[in-house]
Amino acid sequence: MEKLIISAAICGAEVTKEQNPAVPYTVEEIVREAKSAYDAGASVIHLHVREDDGTPTQSKDRFQVCVDAIRKECPEAIIQPSTGGAVGMTDLERLQSTEIEPTPEFATLDCGTCNFGGDDIFINTDNTIINFAKIMKERGIKPELEVFEKGMIDTALKVEKKGFLTRPLHFDFVLGVQMSATIRDLLFMSESIPEGSTWTASGLGKNAWSIAAATIALGGHVRVGFEDNLYMEKGVLAKSNGEMVAKVVELAKLLGREVATPAEAREILSLKPLKQEKPKKQKK
Amino acid sequence: MEKLIISAAICGAEVTKEQNPAVPYTVEEIVREAKSAYDAGASVIHLHVREDDGTPTQSKDRFQVCVDAIRKECPEAIIQPSTGGAVGMTDLERLQSTEIEPTPEFATLDCGTCNFGGDDIFINTDNTIINFAKIMKERGIKPELEVFEKGMIDTALKVEKKGFLTRPLHFDFVLGVQMSATIRDLLFMSESIPEGSTWTASGLGKNAWSIAAATIALGGHVRVGFEDNLYMEKGVLAKSNGEMVAKVVELAKLLGREVATPAEAREILSLKPLKQEKPKKQKK
Amino acid sequence: MEKLIISAAICGAEVTKEQNPAVPYTVEEIVREAKSAYDAGASVIHLHVREDDGTPTQSKDRFQVCVDAIRKECPEAIIQPSTGGAVGMTDLERLQSTEIEPTPEFATLDCGTCNFGGDDIFINTDNTIINFAKIMKERGIKPELEVFEKGMIDTALKVEKKGFLTRPLHFDFVLGVQMSATIRDLLFMSESIPEGSTWTASGLGKNAWSIAAATIALGGHVRVGFEDNLYMEKGVLAKSNGEMVAKVVELAKLLGREVATPAEAREILSLKPLKQEKPKKQKK
Amino acid sequence: MEKLIISAAICGAEVTKEQNPAVPYTVEEIVREAKSAYDAGASVIHLHVREDDGTPTQSKDRFQVCVDAIRKECPEAIIQPSTGGAVGMTDLERLQSTEIEPTPEFATLDCGTCNFGGDDIFINTDNTIINFAKIMKERGIKPELEVFEKGMIDTALKVEKKGFLTRPLHFDFVLGVQMSATIRDLLFMSESIPEGSTWTASGLGKNAWSIAAATIALGGHVRVGFEDNLYMEKGVLAKSNGEMVAKVVELAKLLGREVATPAEAREILSLKPLKQEKPKKQKK
Ligand SMILES: [Mg+2]
Ligand SMILES: [Mg+2]
Ligand SMILES: [Zn+2]
Ligand SMILES: [Zn+2]
Ligand SMILES: [Zn+2]
Ligand SMILES: [Zn+2]
Repeated sequence: MEKLIISAAICGAEVTKEQNPAVPYTVEEIVREAKSAYDAGASVIHLHVREDDGTPTQSKDRFQVCVDAIRKECPEAIIQPSTGGAVGMTDLERLQSTEIEPTPEFATLDCGTCNFGGDDIFINTDNTIINFAKIMKERGIKPELEVFEKGMIDTALKVEKKGFLTRPLHFDFVLGVQMSATIRDLLFMSESIPEGSTWTASGLGKNAWSIAAATIALGGHVRVGFEDNLYMEKGVLAKSNGEMVAKVVELAKLLGREVATPAEAREILSLKPLKQEKPKKQKK
Repeated sequence: MEKLIISAAICGAEVTKEQNPAVPYTVEEIVREAKSAYDAGASVIHLHVREDDGTPTQSKDRFQVCVDAIRKECPEAIIQPSTGGAVGMTDLERLQSTEIEPTPEFATLDCGTCNFGGDDIFINTDNTIINFAKIMKERGIKPELEVFEKGMIDTALKVEKKGFLTRPLHFDFVLGVQMSATIRDLLFMSESIPEGSTWTASGLGKNAWSIAAATIALGGHVRVGFEDNLYMEKGVLAKSNGEMVAKVVELAKLLGREVATPAEAREILSLKPLKQEKPKKQKK
Repeated sequence: MEKLIISAAICGAEVTKEQNPAVPYTVEEIVREAKSAYDAGASVIHLHVREDDGTPTQSKDRFQVCVDAIRKECPEAIIQPSTGGAVGMTDLERLQSTEIEPTPEFATLDCGTCNFGGDDIFINTDNTIINFAKIMKERGIKPELEVFEKGMIDTALKVEKKGFLTRPLHFDFVLGVQMSATIRDLLFMSESIPEGSTWTASGLGKNAWSIAAATIALGGHVRVGFEDNLYMEKGVLAKSNGEMVAKVVELAKLLGREVATPAEAREILSLKPLKQEKPKKQKK
Repeated sequence: MEKLIISAAICGAEVTKEQNPAVPYTVEEIVREAKSAYDAGASVIHLHVREDDGTPTQSKDRFQVCVDAIRKECPEAIIQPSTGGAVGMTDLERLQSTEIEPTPEFATLDCGTCNFGGDDIFINTDNTIINFAKIMKERGIKPELEVFEKGMIDTALKVEKKGFLTRPLHFDFVLGVQMSATIRDLLFMSESIPEGSTWTASGLGKNAWSIAAATIALGGHVRVGFEDNLYMEKGVLAKSNGEMVAKVVELAKLLGREVATPAEAREILSLKPLKQEKPKKQKK
């Protein structure tokens, strides 16, 4: 079985310091959390950024600053900006995270529209999805196809058929937003993608660990972090993303699966190499 | 195995006479299509209505006129108004179809938000779903929980937990909008609902018949009609909803399942009896 | 979707004229049943033979006589002798059906041991399976891997790994002996075989038709016949295998799937051509 | 979720000291292994016994001696004798393990016949299964329905329908003998049993830990031990059954599931209380 890629979704757009004081807002906090995850064994940092007061933003500048700062501390990490941003942002706002330099090697691409509680809707129309796919393709960014429902896989496959996505595809099953976070849902999703695809899964809230264990056993890759879950176990807040990554490493050890280094993760995900020279200059 | 309830989705909000000249717009056409389906064996008429030019509408008056006219020709039919209406309508507009007299015994309740192609989104926020459920409960209308994705079942179950839906639940799996219309998807959905629930399924387009056959075998109920499919087979337009219902009846016969009368369907669905006396007067 | 191959299991080893007077024992009866199935649309005749009194036999001579007689009436049919025979036969007895001339292009290979009711066991040890696979490979006979349980698929894959079976594999799911004959079981089985494999399914008894319909929709191939089922519907005995094949053809038509000719079936199954000249002489 | 019952299959009939020197043969060794498992958190000891040279036996005397000796060291343990014994034993031989005193509260009941490698068959005809079920019912022994294939569940349900088994049923899915030991197989099995049933699972060989983790997450119960697996991880032999049980306890902790005490296990399994006074006398 392929080595296990661990992604840390260190921040997200919705969780707050009120829920868990370790949720990062400032650049320093974001770097601290990225480093804790990276040191514990994560090779992918799934990144949202915030203003210092915690407001989610897709600002290109904020992403640039955070990514540069993370890269200094976690030189090999695969930094994967979110293009989902937060509910209510426009497509153009959301795409800014892909405009930093060097162009990211990896970024999320949400494959459908669904409810996000109360009156909220996370909007990704069919046209938006195609547009984001096109742009990522042009920029050489590998999309992580974020799906909350099985039909979003089917949508992604239609977009692929139209030529805007290229195999091997990589999916991320986010369970517990729409579909419940059960092994049954996970298995159904993992059997719904084309042979030769890779996939990551995360279970929201308390099911994070069951989903992680089953994913390790099924040959998928695991995402954990404050974006998805704030607790180590019932009533025990996680002190850092690193603590959660370490728990995944422990599960992998018990289940006999080796953890991938960033270099191995790049290989497994067929990422294109970052072009790192020019950006350094432009950053001035 | 329970007898088979056949629902005819005779009209929908999106198909047009350009696609199939038998699609009904006027009251007369709607009655003609309802009657063809009813005579062929449908016990439920799933109803959208249109202006004479084909524009979809949720107008209470138009629903009242159509329902009354259908009832004259199909006295026993279970008439199930849509509360989904068409993309872009407000919740209040959509709810009008439940305000006719007598209060409908059955109506659809869409359990999530999803894409409807291009820039279109069919919006049913969590708050909308709860609100519709509440209103139907107050009015004694049995909801048909329309789901396009597995997570929409999970949403419905959360709404039930909050007390706004009552068991036994009845689901309608509409496959081919988001989730693909395959037997695999159908089976997964049918195994995702609480024991004791009933369910109907429809497959959009050419998969309508495979989904119908598998549904008959699995003990579900079948919906067909112009809303979901315009063809009898590749290249052969259906001449009427009745022709499609007849094909379902034929499949049921081959597979050894009896077709339910409207009275039997009411029993299976635990519908409350229509209060028909007073409305007759009020209709003046 | 591939065209549909219909196999007729015209005789079996266990059903009797007492159960259905059309069950064939004599050569003439076997030819009559084969021809009725072939004329109705079957391209494969799955063959057991009997003594004139109905006793099952794997006698090479009886198989030779029956196969020659069937071939005269159904010149293009793919005749697939059983190597399963009947409970209690030795491996050597059972293998006789593969020794006729010309060597069969296709034959069954049972992939496990299971109960057959009461004190009966249908025995196919791991060593037997390997031995049969070896012999068929040497003789150029394509095996139909008959499986009654999911683990028998896993057994077949182990035998393949050892080199005694060659891809593309062809499976036959016989449901209703051990695993129940439901769409759920069928789907699980059809998703348990390697990509690029072909498969046939049959459901024992009254579930024959549901399994046939689902199989048609899933892209599998259908086996029906007296070996598996004696009734057209509840209480109505089938008058011939042809009548059952005709019902499958009707289902296929309703579900929009074309029926394969024997030549198309040979192509789909990658059968090697029969060497027909020499055998004719040797038969003297 | 129900607390987790851990069963230790400490000995089995097929593994040897050559494979792992900690495999117990003598009474002392069997007690040592039972105690290590019990102390680590197992509440059920699944028991086969051996002659001092390792030969498997179902001798009533040997079972009596071993059970009495285990009970002294593990006073609360649920001791579950195997009625499967070893390949080649007669039904009467196998049933001896249920004749000890006091009558066991729990014992295995194998629900089908299947291959056990090479020329070996593990024989449990339909008549045997019914007979064993009858006897256990008469003696008040709760059967653990041991199934290696999905069809064996269907067999058990037929036996239940005939009145020889009583709900709530308890199943044990032994994966890796016939069905492969994957989460997909496990899930399929766990969804194939009646609501209200309980179940245990074990995965043979290296998949033991993945199956354990998924079972913990799915709400099943876990069996580990030398009968099923000899290694802690690749190349590392287990030093005792207790070491394996401890690993399950660790997984349960990581996945947030509490481990059941023997008393809690008896409650979950609805076991009848052992009648312990009289037997003490009779044992003379
Ligand atoms: Mg959705
Ligand atoms: Mg078996
Ligand atoms: Zn995110
Ligand atoms: Zn509608
Ligand atoms: Zn046969
Ligand atoms: Zn055992």
